[in-house]
Amino acid sequence: MLTPPPWHFSGEVVMVDYRVDPEAARRFLPPGLEPGADPGAAAAVFATWQWCSQDRAELTDPGHCQFGEFLILLSCEFEGRPMARCPYAWVDQAVPMMRGWVQGMPKQLGVVHQSRPVTVGRAGSRLAPGGRFDGALSVRGRRVVEASVTVERSTDRPPALHDVPLAHTLVFPEWTSSGGGPRPRLVASQVSDVEFSRIWTGSADLKIFQDLEEDFGTLAPLEIGEGHVFSYGETLHGGRLLSD
Amino acid sequence: MLTPPPWHFSGEVVMVDYRVDPEAARRFLPPGLEPGADPGAAAAVFATWQWCSQDRAELTDPGHCQFGEFLILLSCEFEGRPMARCPYAWVDQAVPMMRGWVQGMPKQLGVVHQSRPVTVGRAGSRLAPGGRFDGALSVRGRRVVEASVTVERSTDRPPALHDVPLAHTLVFPEWTSSGGGPRPRLVASQVSDVEFSRIWTGSADLKIFQDLEEDFGTLAPLEIGEGHVFSYGETLHGGRLLSD
Amino acid sequence: MLTPPPWHFSGEVVMVDYRVDPEAARRFLPPGLEPGADPGAAAAVFATWQWCSQDRAELTDPGHCQFGEFLILLSCEFEGRPMARCPYAWVDQAVPMMRGWVQGMPKQLGVVHQSRPVTVGRAGSRLAPGGRFDGALSVRGRRVVEASVTVERSTDRPPALHDVPLAHTLVFPEWTSSGGGPRPRLVASQVSDVEFSRIWTGSADLKIFQDLEEDFGTLAPLEIGEGHVFSYGETLHGGRLLSD
Amino acid sequence: MLTPPPWHFSGEVVMVDYRVDPEAARRFLPPGLEPGADPGAAAAVFATWQWCSQDRAELTDPGHCQFGEFLILLSCEFEGRPMARCPYAWVDQAVPMMRGWVQGMPKQLGVVHQSRPVTVGRAGSRLAPGGRFDGALSVRGRRVVEASVTVERSTDRPPALHDVPLAHTLVFPEWTSSGGGPRPRLVASQVSDVEFSRIWTGSADLKIFQDLEEDFGTLAPLEIGEGHVFSYGETLHGGRLLSD
Repeated sequence: MLTPPPWHFSGEVVMVDYRVDPEAARRFLPPGLEPGADPGAAAAVFATWQWCSQDRAELTDPGHCQFGEFLILLSCEFEGRPMARCPYAWVDQAVPMMRGWVQGMPKQLGVVHQSRPVTVGRAGSRLAPGGRFDGALSVRGRRVVEASVTVERSTDRPPALHDVPLAHTLVFPEWTSSGGGPRPRLVASQVSDVEFSRIWTGSADLKIFQDLEEDFGTLAPLEIGEGHVFSYGETLHGGRLLSD
Repeated sequence: MLTPPPWHFSGEVVMVDYRVDPEAARRFLPPGLEPGADPGAAAAVFATWQWCSQDRAELTDPGHCQFGEFLILLSCEFEGRPMARCPYAWVDQAVPMMRGWVQGMPKQLGVVHQSRPVTVGRAGSRLAPGGRFDGALSVRGRRVVEASVTVERSTDRPPALHDVPLAHTLVFPEWTSSGGGPRPRLVASQVSDVEFSRIWTGSADLKIFQDLEEDFGTLAPLEIGEGHVFSYGETLHGGRLLSD
Repeated sequence: MLTPPPWHFSGEVVMVDYRVDPEAARRFLPPGLEPGADPGAAAAVFATWQWCSQDRAELTDPGHCQFGEFLILLSCEFEGRPMARCPYAWVDQAVPMMRGWVQGMPKQLGVVHQSRPVTVGRAGSRLAPGGRFDGALSVRGRRVVEASVTVERSTDRPPALHDVPLAHTLVFPEWTSSGGGPRPRLVASQVSDVEFSRIWTGSADLKIFQDLEEDFGTLAPLEIGEGHVFSYGETLHGGRLLSD
Repeated sequence: MLTPPPWHFSGEVVMVDYRVDPEAARRFLPPGLEPGADPGAAAAVFATWQWCSQDRAELTDPGHCQFGEFLILLSCEFEGRPMARCPYAWVDQAVPMMRGWVQGMPKQLGVVHQSRPVTVGRAGSRLAPGGRFDGALSVRGRRVVEASVTVERSTDRPPALHDVPLAHTLVFPEWTSSGGGPRPRLVASQVSDVEFSRIWTGSADLKIFQDLEEDFGTLAPLEIGEGHVFSYGETLHGGRLLSD
């Protein structure tokens, strides 16, 4: 079902910076990760991706190489180095969901929609001051997240939480009475060829609905920061053990 | 379920010019439409749309304002004026499907996928010479159409079959023994604010699979022409009777 | 896309009797229909269907002949005869949606799920006292209706609102400036070969969520009656004009 | 995302016995499993499931507790004991897909449809001589498997390949340069409370389409045996290591 890495990704991102209760965020950090210099900093990230393996074969089948994603990122540190932790992620295709588990990222299946910037016609916003871009996540027939960004200006500075390594946890499920695989291990994703477009930034709104599950609800926004709309590319090569 | 027109549309199009058996094409033309100067000229059109009503309210709900579409266009004439006839169309959302029937366009529900040009990263083609863009249609779990365009150059000249009015047939289904509505009537879509991006043009491939139904199979390509990739916007206001 | 009637239907039904504000119900009755002897009587009906045309050809393609449905029924009368009016209906397939519009029933597309009685194993309820059966409707990623029935006894008496004719309104959309088809007309569905299984009846619960649209919210339950679980078959032949 | 076992299952099964090239089947058997007494014996199994955890909480959410499945079973032996090997499986929900990987079963995501026996009306077959029941699998918009069973008689004898333990392989993906988990291990599913309904048996048809992937195509039928339609329940507790 899965090809071996490296995997290439090209995506369109709608992202909202926000703040959660630092104590709630801390409960999602495993041993080895610390809240760091900015506890409670978080981001809600919608992305529309294309992906392919090294031989780029998947690109000729557009129903196979595309998927939508929503994830929450929490600011953290490992041995003093800024990183991000992803406590929740949803994608709308099976292959990226399985690939998430392989890399220690707890991806679930959901329905993700996101505005597309337009360049002609009136049915959408242009990437220009005043343009509005929305994202929405539904899980099992219920609305779970809604985000909206109205862009005002463009910069070259990537959003902080989209510009640090992700620290995941490799988990091996226990199935037999003689145990599963080894104990959980912290791992950082190994990424190259990172490429950002101009970053369009402006005001934002974010709703995290409370009826999915109790733990998810603790990550509701205390304060909403700026929103960002941009294109992003990277190549994912594998993982590097942070601790053993 | 449906808002009143006008409806605005902004879309990304992957389109292949091709030729069908002129006699097969003629069988899809109702009384009043003639094969015209170029009998057998046809196009296979994939499009990814955003749409909205006059107040643009739908744009804040990206799962509502987006849909994918595939349609076949056949060259024809009405009283000497070049037009296009759409014998088959599929969309992946209910609202545009119903809206199709209201305007006399026989839209069905299918699964439509189409490559998205990228500007960063390696998972996709840029809109530049050598870029490849694919489309695929599946209906009830079977692959029905595959198209591929490799763009080579850009122009300002819209593809011929995407630049003429569409001639549909308003049909009122018969449900009671006392009959349905009036007899079928030819109608032309009333469109304004047409906007094209640069048109990227190049070589193309097109497969029309034979196992959907016999009539659809008669529209398989005898010859494959150029392919086009472009953005397109329009506003649809209603219909104008061609004959009564 | 549609075969001509007659169409055969075999379904599994989970249904809840309830009461709405009689004034709210009256606003959904067109001229010609009266509230009747029991104003405010309503039902919420989940059904899992198989259907086929006269030659039964669709039955060999299970993805084509199956669909789920949810509808609201309101008690009413036409010239003193008890009937039911359906102000809202959702199905999860395109063919029954279009067929609804042909017969004057305003069907939309939604996601419908409904418990299946089991006869072996522990993952479900048997059709026996204490068995619980649920239904759920989501529309555009939001939960809209939830129903639950716990059956206590079985009878041969069909639920009142499932045993009267449906009065629909044939509507011909206006598309050209010269008007659409004729004015709306009241029509009753012509049904034969009605067959009920034993009716399992018991206590019920029903939630109608308020955030779909204002009009739908006015049909929320003031009082919840009994619930019913049963199998039902019929053949639908066409419509009969109630008024012209 | 996953609750701990035990998990209860209640399902409706449409199954076709058939024979594959014994050499092709052997290529799907890992070290430790032997072709056994009946090399080349295989089965194609469609099932419509409900499932729940020990507290049965999922049953109140019918969109969560239901899924469809298709799998291929190959006859084999472990240390002389008859077992079945599953080289391919597809389900239409994310939770059973992930649960498959946890137990060493390579489940992918597909679209599965299967006839439902009816007890009233004309839109389907009754479980009685002459009744026909179909299954269909599509993967990424392409038809992959079609099966059909026409039942003739009922028995109490379960189909051979549905009445032996399944031997899966626990695999721990390698993600970091320091390796993944331990090497793959053979494991048998631990099942209790197995319950069969009467087994309806008759003639069958089976098509395995060749365009999914080369390896899958090697499991196409050389000979088609009988088909079976029945209900089945079990409780799955975990896995037992066959070898270490």
